[in-house]
Amino acid sequence: MARRRDLGGLIFIDLRDRYGKTQMVVHPEESPDVTAQAHQLHAEWVIEADGIVQERPQGMVNRDLPTGEIEVKLTALTVLNPCPALPFQLDEADKASEELRLKYRYLDLRRPEVQEVFMLRHRVAQVVREHFSGEGFLEIETPFMVKSTPEGARDYLVPSRIFPGHFYALPQSPQIYKQLLMVAGFDRYFQIVRCFRDEDLRSDRQPEFTQVDVEITFADREVIFGTAERLFVKILKHAWGIDIATPLPRLTYQHVMDTYGSDKPDLRFGLPFSNLTDCLRGTDFRIIASSIEEGGVVIGLCVKGQAGVSRKELGELENLARQCGLPGLLSLKLTAEGLAGSLSGKISEAQAAAVCKELKSETGDLLLMAVGKKSAVLKGLGVLRRLLAERFRLFDPNSHENPSLFWVVDFPLFERNEETGEVAASHHPFTGYLTEDEHLLESEPWNVRSTAYDLVMNGSELLSGSIRIHDSAQQAKIFQLLKISDEEAQLRFGFLLEALRYGAPPMGGMAIGLDRTIMCLTGGSIRDVIAFPKTNLAQSLVDGSPSEVDPQLLKDLHLVIQKPKS
Amino acid sequence: MARRRDLGGLIFIDLRDRYGKTQMVVHPEESPDVTAQAHQLHAEWVIEADGIVQERPQGMVNRDLPTGEIEVKLTALTVLNPCPALPFQLDEADKASEELRLKYRYLDLRRPEVQEVFMLRHRVAQVVREHFSGEGFLEIETPFMVKSTPEGARDYLVPSRIFPGHFYALPQSPQIYKQLLMVAGFDRYFQIVRCFRDEDLRSDRQPEFTQVDVEITFADREVIFGTAERLFVKILKHAWGIDIATPLPRLTYQHVMDTYGSDKPDLRFGLPFSNLTDCLRGTDFRIIASSIEEGGVVIGLCVKGQAGVSRKELGELENLARQCGLPGLLSLKLTAEGLAGSLSGKISEAQAAAVCKELKSETGDLLLMAVGKKSAVLKGLGVLRRLLAERFRLFDPNSHENPSLFWVVDFPLFERNEETGEVAASHHPFTGYLTEDEHLLESEPWNVRSTAYDLVMNGSELLSGSIRIHDSAQQAKIFQLLKISDEEAQLRFGFLLEALRYGAPPMGGMAIGLDRTIMCLTGGSIRDVIAFPKTNLAQSLVDGSPSEVDPQLLKDLHLVIQKPKS
Repeated sequence: MARRRDLGGLIFIDLRDRYGKTQMVVHPEESPDVTAQAHQLHAEWVIEADGIVQERPQGMVNRDLPTGEIEVKLTALTVLNPCPALPFQLDEADKASEELRLKYRYLDLRRPEVQEVFMLRHRVAQVVREHFSGEGFLEIETPFMVKSTPEGARDYLVPSRIFPGHFYALPQSPQIYKQLLMVAGFDRYFQIVRCFRDEDLRSDRQPEFTQVDVEITFADREVIFGTAERLFVKILKHAWGIDIATPLPRLTYQHVMDTYGSDKPDLRFGLPFSNLTDCLRGTDFRIIASSIEEGGVVIGLCVKGQAGVSRKELGELENLARQCGLPGLLSLKLTAEGLAGSLSGKISEAQAAAVCKELKSETGDLLLMAVGKKSAVLKGLGVLRRLLAERFRLFDPNSHENPSLFWVVDFPLFERNEETGEVAASHHPFTGYLTEDEHLLESEPWNVRSTAYDLVMNGSELLSGSIRIHDSAQQAKIFQLLKISDEEAQLRFGFLLEALRYGAPPMGGMAIGLDRTIMCLTGGSIRDVIAFPKTNLAQSLVDGSPSEVDPQLLKDLHLVIQKPKS
Repeated sequence: MARRRDLGGLIFIDLRDRYGKTQMVVHPEESPDVTAQAHQLHAEWVIEADGIVQERPQGMVNRDLPTGEIEVKLTALTVLNPCPALPFQLDEADKASEELRLKYRYLDLRRPEVQEVFMLRHRVAQVVREHFSGEGFLEIETPFMVKSTPEGARDYLVPSRIFPGHFYALPQSPQIYKQLLMVAGFDRYFQIVRCFRDEDLRSDRQPEFTQVDVEITFADREVIFGTAERLFVKILKHAWGIDIATPLPRLTYQHVMDTYGSDKPDLRFGLPFSNLTDCLRGTDFRIIASSIEEGGVVIGLCVKGQAGVSRKELGELENLARQCGLPGLLSLKLTAEGLAGSLSGKISEAQAAAVCKELKSETGDLLLMAVGKKSAVLKGLGVLRRLLAERFRLFDPNSHENPSLFWVVDFPLFERNEETGEVAASHHPFTGYLTEDEHLLESEPWNVRSTAYDLVMNGSELLSGSIRIHDSAQQAKIFQLLKISDEEAQLRFGFLLEALRYGAPPMGGMAIGLDRTIMCLTGGSIRDVIAFPKTNLAQSLVDGSPSEVDPQLLKDLHLVIQKPKS
């Protein structure tokens, strides 16, 4: 029962279920017993009601409700379960803390707009399964209790009771097992599957998340791209009713990093970067000159028509830039009265003209620039670019008309581990590389491009994949470059390496983040699209896990807890 | 490449993939280069082949192969990956140990008959999803890292890194979470989901297994039975091409236990039991007389037309009975020459006649009887009955014509824990009971019938479910009878009990064992229907899990291993 209203002697009861609301009406004179019962009812009680469906009286029709033309005249009423006052009001959920809503998640899930998310999620999962089944893929279940082969993130472990001191891991992905399925000759595999990562959580991550896992043998990138594009055409048609044109654009990693400072830029708005270093080389302006001397760069972007921002607003933008990790922000306002902004007067007219030309700017535009080490400037401006677009309303985040959807290709095969400075696999160590870059493996490993690819929508990476290495000699070479010894490789991946020796076909695949895809389709946070999500501390507030357990259980697992000294 | 044959100057190569085999042919005179390459090939190599599809010469057509009318004349050949000799021959897999086949599971999975199992499993999962989606159910994912609420079996635990000494459990089923979804107003839920139990394994159990989990609100048993029956009609039509009549028969627990000595009897053959105690009361025959004196029973069955078994065969049957836990087996052979068997001459003619009448036997039949405590005799005979049916070929295990498929209803609500003698929930503590038995809860708890039900096919329990308790007072009463204190109930299920207070609707549901269903459809063991199964010691031989892990990981989890003293 959503609510009860007593109006002019009549009692109106709104019943709510997954399909909407229906109005019941009780006439005190006709049904005094039912009336007496109805007076006891409160919101969120569960009732069984008998009655006669009838047209609403004229003037009482509610055109906003699918059931707004009828009402049910109650003839009998049974209370199936009462309900005390809720910890928060369903129609005022935004006033409740997220903590309270997560603790009473089953109440939060009663809200129609929240239920919509899970109905969409169900339908998208159906679209996914129909798509892959229709294209000849088999859904095959891979194990959840697997060998610990940590890569990237930390494994969640499961202690074995039968083998003391031995552990299973929860899979970070079914990567190795799907490759084994390819070796087994299942040429087209998919699975909607839970994955687990014990990492420090950011707001868009969850310790357990769901991915659509896909692998194909004897396939090049075109086959995989085609399969994915046909799927996203269906998903976007279904969820938003829009048609997207394929093939989707393909941008190189190098291009999107240089132009948008991100490997998953949102292209619903412009704001491309230009490297202004050459325009400003030789300036007297100290900040720029000293940075260029130290090998730094000047990178800028042009905000169309925003030359009118006030000094105060510019100050706010500079603060925003610092929050994005930039040391500062230089500005030029191209006003009708001439140049203004922090850089005006600091550089020569010729330099200013060169900058304007490079940024294709015209009177009325606002130019923003940052100075420093190239990778840091690109990264900071990449974050700032998104915030600028929101601030200046350069796109409508609620519009579904023209999503920004494209491939990023030619990722570097290796990246430097930020902590240790050592070479690490950008994707995972089974990722292939472009044949034409093979000669660079030893001499310029950072310049070797991999066969990895991402699909990016509205600034989110929805899909990631690669063509794998299927040759055990190539795989050994990569391990060598990653400084993974033969012994370590054997210990960690020995069973995969052995499988690759037994006639492994060429293979490639992808993993689509299902939670993130639903998030992208519905808006909101990742916690909104998971029925029982965990907090940033990986706690489940609805059931209170993790929790202490019966000491006998730990004894049976041959484990002793050693709490850190506080 | 499945195999290469050199025949009369020609080379024949069989290519194998998921869809079947195709024959390639190389003509040495026409393609000397390809011939030289082809001579290098061995079985299980992965090759890329170019060629011309042509009709096979007359007399070479193979009607047994879908591709038997054509062959591909090879024009080019590339070796994509070689393969050393396999650890076992694919067409002689039955000669390899199961251990070897599990270690090289990816090779075992190459066998066409094994691949068939996973293609069927994929299609059955599709049928399941289409069925439930079509009937308005939403597939909603429940968490895998949950609160430990052990019931029945032991939980697998996952240590928390962030909260030292705290643990998640892997779910034994999504029972509590699907009940929360019902409280949330998702009136029809299903999920194909992995579940986990850390129990000592029997041959038909796995530590991780898959179930089709279903829950419905405002539904009585009829709604749930209808949903399940419509599903099994589709599954059996799809897998075996047969039509089954619904509604399926419903047998009470009491009836199947008394008549077949099992709560999941196979009814593809007869062999019902009769209680012969009254027929034989007052006999001088010591074995029977003393047993009846002690409150025991005589229970027998009639094997039609098998009076001709030899003394030696009867001895074998007695051995079989002892393996089934029976102390012995008494027999009467109704031969044309008169009575024979171990009981002939030991009982009076009138008693023998009464036994024959009770068992509806006639000349030519073999009567087998066991004596002792009723529950033990029923249990032992229940196992023996199945073995007798196999031995006397009373049914064709490979026939799909008349499967034995029916409901078992009216299970007892409580059972005695075999170890402690204490009262325990037969199903789980949230199972409801028949209203008409409510008055027995305190006085005769063992006679209270629950709202639980099973679906049994060919002697396997494929589905189990119940109507739940949705009233928190009723639930408290059950906990009290189960000797679960308020404190313990709060600690273990507090969050569910609280949810039930907030307007929980009546609800019921079921869980279908997917592995066991596929097993029932394909024959074989549970390990045959799981891509990467575990052994009876819960080991995964393909990846070597569980395994030792980096000590740093354990340190981060605040755990120390305490190995048992050997």
